Amino acid sequence: MSLEESVLQGDRLALARLLTRIENDADDGDAALDILFPHAGRAHLIGVTGAPGTGKSSLVNQLALHFRKQGKRIAIVAVDPSSPFTGGAVLGDRVRMRDLSGDHGVFIRSMASRGSVGGLARATANVVQVFDAAGYEIIMIETVGAGQSEVDIARLAHTTLVVEAPGLGDDIQAIKAGILEIADIIVVNKADRPGAENTEKALKSMLDLAHPVNKVYVHHGTLAPIHLSSSRARRMEGDREGNGGGWLPPIQKTIAIDGKGIDELAQHIARHGEYLKVSGDWTVREHARLESELEAALQYILMDQFRGRVSEARFNKVVNRVFERTLSPGEAAKALTTGNGRLK
Amino acid sequence: MSLEESVLQGDRLALARLLTRIENDADDGDAALDILFPHAGRAHLIGVTGAPGTGKSSLVNQLALHFRKQGKRIAIVAVDPSSPFTGGAVLGDRVRMRDLSGDHGVFIRSMASRGSVGGLARATANVVQVFDAAGYEIIMIETVGAGQSEVDIARLAHTTLVVEAPGLGDDIQAIKAGILEIADIIVVNKADRPGAENTEKALKSMLDLAHPVNKVYVHHGTLAPIHLSSSRARRMEGDREGNGGGWLPPIQKTIAIDGKGIDELAQHIARHGEYLKVSGDWTVREHARLESELEAALQYILMDQFRGRVSEARFNKVVNRVFERTLSPGEAAKALTTGNGRLK
Repeated sequence: MSLEESVLQGDRLALARLLTRIENDADDGDAALDILFPHAGRAHLIGVTGAPGTGKSSLVNQLALHFRKQGKRIAIVAVDPSSPFTGGAVLGDRVRMRDLSGDHGVFIRSMASRGSVGGLARATANVVQVFDAAGYEIIMIETVGAGQSEVDIARLAHTTLVVEAPGLGDDIQAIKAGILEIADIIVVNKADRPGAENTEKALKSMLDLAHPVNKVYVHHGTLAPIHLSSSRARRMEGDREGNGGGWLPPIQKTIAIDGKGIDELAQHIARHGEYLKVSGDWTVREHARLESELEAALQYILMDQFRGRVSEARFNKVVNRVFERTLSPGEAAKALTTGNGRLK
Repeated sequence: MSLEESVLQGDRLALARLLTRIENDADDGDAALDILFPHAGRAHLIGVTGAPGTGKSSLVNQLALHFRKQGKRIAIVAVDPSSPFTGGAVLGDRVRMRDLSGDHGVFIRSMASRGSVGGLARATANVVQVFDAAGYEIIMIETVGAGQSEVDIARLAHTTLVVEAPGLGDDIQAIKAGILEIADIIVVNKADRPGAENTEKALKSMLDLAHPVNKVYVHHGTLAPIHLSSSRARRMEGDREGNGGGWLPPIQKTIAIDGKGIDELAQHIARHGEYLKVSGDWTVREHARLESELEAALQYILMDQFRGRVSEARFNKVVNRVFERTLSPGEAAKALTTGNGRLK
C-alpha cells in the first residue's frame, strides 16, 4: 500500500512520515499532495492567534479536549516562528502532551520557521491539507506573533480566533486594531486577571469603530452562551454589507487553565462554521484559498519556464546592468521577457 | 520641469506629491521609479523594529535629532500595520512633529497597511527608493509588530535595530528569539525601568546561543562607546563564518525620552555601516535586494503574459476543476502552462 493510501486509512505512523516528507518540500511531497487533494476540503480550519503571553496554547489544548468529548478527530498545527535554537517547537509539544498524550484522536504537529519568506505559510497550508484529507474534522492552526503571519492564517482558516489578555500594556492597542480586522471571534483569556473588564471595554470600542452600524455583543463571565436574537439571525443570513460583513465578532471571556468559558467558545466556533455555510462564505473562502494556491503554482512554473528560455549569459548581463543602476528592475524584467528586446 | 526632476533638485512639495503617486501604485508611479532608479543606492537604510510598547518611535525621533546635528538629511518611513480606522498613522505623524516639525532636513512619511499581502512591503521599498534618489542620506524604516514584516524589513535595510524593553512579560521571549536573528544591533530601551538588567541578561544568553563561539559585547549604562578590540576588528574584516557572520550584534541600553544612550547607539549604527562596506556585505545586501525586485517584476510580467495567452473560458474551466477537487492546483497549473496539454 502506498504511503498516501495508508494515510487515508488512518495510519498514524504513515501520516507522520508523510508530513515530514511534505515539510521537507521534496518532489514526492508534491506528488502526494496531488493524490490527497481530492480527499481534502471537509475539515473546519480554525486559526488561533494573538500576542505572546495571552495563553493561546492552553486555550488550544482546552478546545481540543472539548472537541474530543464530542468524538471529533482533531489536528493541531503549532506554527512557531521562534528560532530553532530555542527549541520552542519541541518544548511546545512537551507541554501539550500532558493533557492530550496517548489520545489517538488528536494529532499535534509543530512547525518551526525555516527562515524563508512565505515558505512557512505554504508548508503550513500543505500540512493542513494532509490532515484534512486524512479525515481530521477540526484543524487548529496556532501562531505566535503579530503581523503578516496572522493575515496569512486568516486566509487559510475558516474561523479565526484572536486571543487577548489583560495587562499586556497599553501600547499593544496599536497591534490589536490591525488584528481585530481578521478576527471572527475575540477571546479575552486570563479573564480572572485584574484589568479584564478594561481589556474587554477597549476591544468593544475598537469593534464599534470597525462596525459602526452594528451593535457588538459582549458576553460577561462564563455564563450560558447567548442565543441569537432574530435581528442577529437575519444579519447572519443576508446582510453582508459594510466592514466585516454580516458576522459580528463576539467577545468571549475565558480562563483556559481552569477550562472556564471553553464550552461557550466552542459554541461560537460551531456557530461561525454554520454561518459560513448558510451565507455562502465557506465556499467563498475555500475558492479564494484554492485560487491563491493555483496562482502560486502558476508563478512557480512560469518562472521555471522563463529560466529555461533565457540563457544564463544574457540573464547575468541584464542583472549586472541593474547592479550598475543603469537599468531599473522593471526595465530589466521587460527586456528579459520581450524576447530579443534591445537593452537601452 | 518634470516631477522627478523637481524631486532630484530637492523640492519637498514635489517629493510629497510623487510619494503619493507611488503609494497609489499608478502606472506613472512605476515610470517615475524607473527614472529615479539610477540616482538611488547611496542612502544608509536603517530598519527599526520590535514589540509594541518598547518605545520605537521615541528612539527613532532621537536618532533623527542626533543625525540632524551631524548635518545629515533624514527620512523616516513609519510603517504602521494598524487599521486605518484607528488613525494610527496620522497620530504617529502628530506625535513626531513636536521635535522635528519645521526642520527641512527631515521628511516623515507614514504608511498604513492596505491589507494586501506583500503590498505594504513593496510600497515601502518604493518610497525608500524615492527618498534615496532625492538625496536623503539616512532613511529609517520603523515598523510595529513582530513576525514576517520584520524579516521583510531586514531584507530592505542595511542595518536592523531590534528594540526591546524591560517588563513586557516573559512569554515575549519566544518572539525575541526569532527577531534576534535579524538584529544587527539590539537596543534595550526604557533602561531605567525595573528589570532592565534581566532583560539584558536574557538577551545576552540568547545571543550566546545564537553565536556560541563568539563573545557578545554588552555595554552597561550610557557610558562612552566601546572601542573595538583588535580581535573584534579582525573579525569585522574577515571572519564571516557561522551563524551571524563576523558582526557581533552589540546590546545598547537607552532611555530614549531622556536622550540617553543615543550617541552610543548612533555610533554603533555608523560602525555597522562601516563594517558592511569593509566586509563587502553592503554590496551583497544591495544585490540581494535588487535581485528580489527584479524577480518580483519578472513574476508580474510573466503572469501578465500568461493571462494574455490563455483564454478566459479555458482558465475558468480549469479553475472549476480545482474547485470540484478533481484537479489539484499543481496539476491545474501544469495543464494551463503546457500549451494544449489535455486535462486528465
